[in-house]
Amino acid sequence: MDEKILHEDELGNLRRSHYSFQISKQNINEEIVIIGWISSKRDHGNVLFVQLRDQFGEMQIVVKKKEVPSELFSTLKNLKEHSSVGIRGVVTEQKNSSDQFEIIPKEIKILSISNKPAPFLTQAISSIGIDTRLDLRAIDLRRNHLQLVFKIRNTILNSIREYFSANHFIEVNTPKMIATATEGGAALFPIFYYDREAFLAQSPQLYKEQLTMAFESVFEIAPIFRAEPSRTNRHLSEAISVDVEKAYVDYRDMMDHLEKLIIHIIWTVNNKNAEDLRALGIELPKINSNFPRITYTDLINKLQANHKFIRWGDDISPKIIKDLFGEEFFFIIDWPASTKPFYVKSITSNDSDESKPLDENKLLSESFDLMFGSLELSSGSTRINKKYLLLENMKKKGLNYKAFDYHLRVFDYAVPPHAGFGLGLERLIMALLKLENIRDATFYPRDIDRLTP
Amino acid sequence: MDEKILHEDELGNLRRSHYSFQISKQNINEEIVIIGWISSKRDHGNVLFVQLRDQFGEMQIVVKKKEVPSELFSTLKNLKEHSSVGIRGVVTEQKNSSDQFEIIPKEIKILSISNKPAPFLTQAISSIGIDTRLDLRAIDLRRNHLQLVFKIRNTILNSIREYFSANHFIEVNTPKMIATATEGGAALFPIFYYDREAFLAQSPQLYKEQLTMAFESVFEIAPIFRAEPSRTNRHLSEAISVDVEKAYVDYRDMMDHLEKLIIHIIWTVNNKNAEDLRALGIELPKINSNFPRITYTDLINKLQANHKFIRWGDDISPKIIKDLFGEEFFFIIDWPASTKPFYVKSITSNDSDESKPLDENKLLSESFDLMFGSLELSSGSTRINKKYLLLENMKKKGLNYKAFDYHLRVFDYAVPPHAGFGLGLERLIMALLKLENIRDATFYPRDIDRLTP
Repeated sequence: MDEKILHEDELGNLRRSHYSFQISKQNINEEIVIIGWISSKRDHGNVLFVQLRDQFGEMQIVVKKKEVPSELFSTLKNLKEHSSVGIRGVVTEQKNSSDQFEIIPKEIKILSISNKPAPFLTQAISSIGIDTRLDLRAIDLRRNHLQLVFKIRNTILNSIREYFSANHFIEVNTPKMIATATEGGAALFPIFYYDREAFLAQSPQLYKEQLTMAFESVFEIAPIFRAEPSRTNRHLSEAISVDVEKAYVDYRDMMDHLEKLIIHIIWTVNNKNAEDLRALGIELPKINSNFPRITYTDLINKLQANHKFIRWGDDISPKIIKDLFGEEFFFIIDWPASTKPFYVKSITSNDSDESKPLDENKLLSESFDLMFGSLELSSGSTRINKKYLLLENMKKKGLNYKAFDYHLRVFDYAVPPHAGFGLGLERLIMALLKLENIRDATFYPRDIDRLTP
Repeated sequence: MDEKILHEDELGNLRRSHYSFQISKQNINEEIVIIGWISSKRDHGNVLFVQLRDQFGEMQIVVKKKEVPSELFSTLKNLKEHSSVGIRGVVTEQKNSSDQFEIIPKEIKILSISNKPAPFLTQAISSIGIDTRLDLRAIDLRRNHLQLVFKIRNTILNSIREYFSANHFIEVNTPKMIATATEGGAALFPIFYYDREAFLAQSPQLYKEQLTMAFESVFEIAPIFRAEPSRTNRHLSEAISVDVEKAYVDYRDMMDHLEKLIIHIIWTVNNKNAEDLRALGIELPKINSNFPRITYTDLINKLQANHKFIRWGDDISPKIIKDLFGEEFFFIIDWPASTKPFYVKSITSNDSDESKPLDENKLLSESFDLMFGSLELSSGSTRINKKYLLLENMKKKGLNYKAFDYHLRVFDYAVPPHAGFGLGLERLIMALLKLENIRDATFYPRDIDRLTP
């Protein structure tokens, strides 16, 4: 064995001449400079096959002991996977290789040396526990599987912005440090805000509603924070939420938007990431018609056939509907007002006898959840735009309405009718890419047990 | 006077047939439905001129007492500005109007009633204190001036993403709840993270650096949190930062990227918002050549001519350089290592005599600040990619290196050489649009005195 102490070189003026995707048979006999990290190595004694990876893909370097400087050969033999190198070499015809060429190195610069054996193979889907992977997330993210997931995530983000831009929504950012809880007091992270107590926003709810006054159609893609005590595969303490709000429409218009948005995302990913989907071995859900819309009341009636104990007014847990729906998108609409937050509009008029007094406990709301099988992806509703109704609801839900003065005062100046939804980006990715754990839909997950890296 | 008690109608099935920009002379004699809020009203007794605004602009409604139902006339007469209405009307030729048409209403639905007189005219630049405006921000944002600012902000955001997408950067999101301070212990917001203490991220620094391992070229546009005790026109407690990081390059490459990014933004806004810029009465800075790059040392020498007390190694305050530079972009480069955070790479080799021992106090760093006049827009540098150097620097700066174990362990697996920068979005907007107060570059500002709305 050629044991050797390796030294790192400075990057200096070394820059790549070609990314992996820019090299083809056209470059045969050209001298090129490639830079990347070693994703795998096969050592056949006097011949080394080195896979060098840059952000676009892999390049095969073939190193024959007889044909390269001995210094270079022993360097590559001793370098561990994950090390970064720059290589000056010649693109050479190779009929036996699938690319019809290989790269024969002439000079090598070591840019960064890995001191430890790789903790997992970058080619493996994952045989190792997620916590071990997350502890070394930056290296874990080099694995092929996650590379594909996050490449597709990038397409999804772009396609969401494309959709909203084409539909004349303006992108906004609302504060994450807020004075009061919107969705109720639990599940909040408290902050020291200078000398006061404040909280991290669970959603941009009240802000996006207010912004419909000035901009009519708004969306925000930003972190939300929920102190979820649950340890599940579908909850995060910090997630990216796609929040949308629009004036002069109701929840049915927003269901239409959400449906078209999902269809646009799937269409775009199928177009831009066809090869990546093949590499992942998955197909995106096919959408042949409108998403089914089932009312909460009908669903409860159906569920009662098999679940004696579920009652109208109960929340619907993922477990209980697991057997009822396959992996498809559908809406559950018209939830009891009692199950929804204070800002959700109730259904007050309908075809039934209006002379009958309203039964508060039977009150429905103009609301929907978008489901994918048993996974909730989005919640939306028509919102209340009248101050007295908001006040009434706040009292009903036991909220301290005085703490919402900064919000309520806006309603004196005519907040337009409006509706909107929030869509969990990681949940959508999880559904589309059939991920087992939501943590793999985010770069650095946060949960009750994990605050690092 | 026709005093009248007004009642709000439900939105119901009322939807607009045309946005303001979709109505032209082509529509004369057509019946249309328009929806929006009343931005101004002139009452000539028996004729009312009502400006109705939707998200694209204004429409003039002409209401003659003799020609419309008396109910409709008195409704519009009594409705305050900011109220939302839906109007069914006919587009009618009007040679005297600048548009050559006006809208004669046939039916009106009141969607939301303003109960208070408007706190400021939507047409006024602003004669009123910023705190009064911020207390009613949603209404303040209806003012023409801010409408234009945020329309341009939207273009800026899109153009930033365009630039990075064209240059093969992937968009990432890093956690905002973190275990340790990156840039030093002050100016941090502490959080209760379940049963532990945590902090809000001042920047995505260490995460974006780590992500260069897996994705090479990354960017993030997301909130950062700084507990700035200062009350100035250029500091926010919560701001949007454009963070960029790239492997296998140094700080000079990143200055080139930043320069091209700014040029692309200006070019795009000039193209897409020409009319808005005219309405604002401003021109974007002209860029005729590369941004000047002045070294920190040269700048200090220059400053010492007028400021006896400034010494090499001092920070450079906005005040002190105010007289030296006009409203132009320039870089201050090669800052003393002592002024920069622990992760910034020092300049260790140069043309001078390498046999001389290094004077720690004279050590320079591969760093830059992008300035616009006296306003700092961005900071960037080549980063350290070796564990022992990071450890050395952490000790030198008095940081508890054990708390960074989750970060340092990644360096055992060969972090590539990399460089990057952070660009303050609100500061850039402030510079480009000549805003006096950074608070007007954000929707809902946060500062030491303000946590609501």
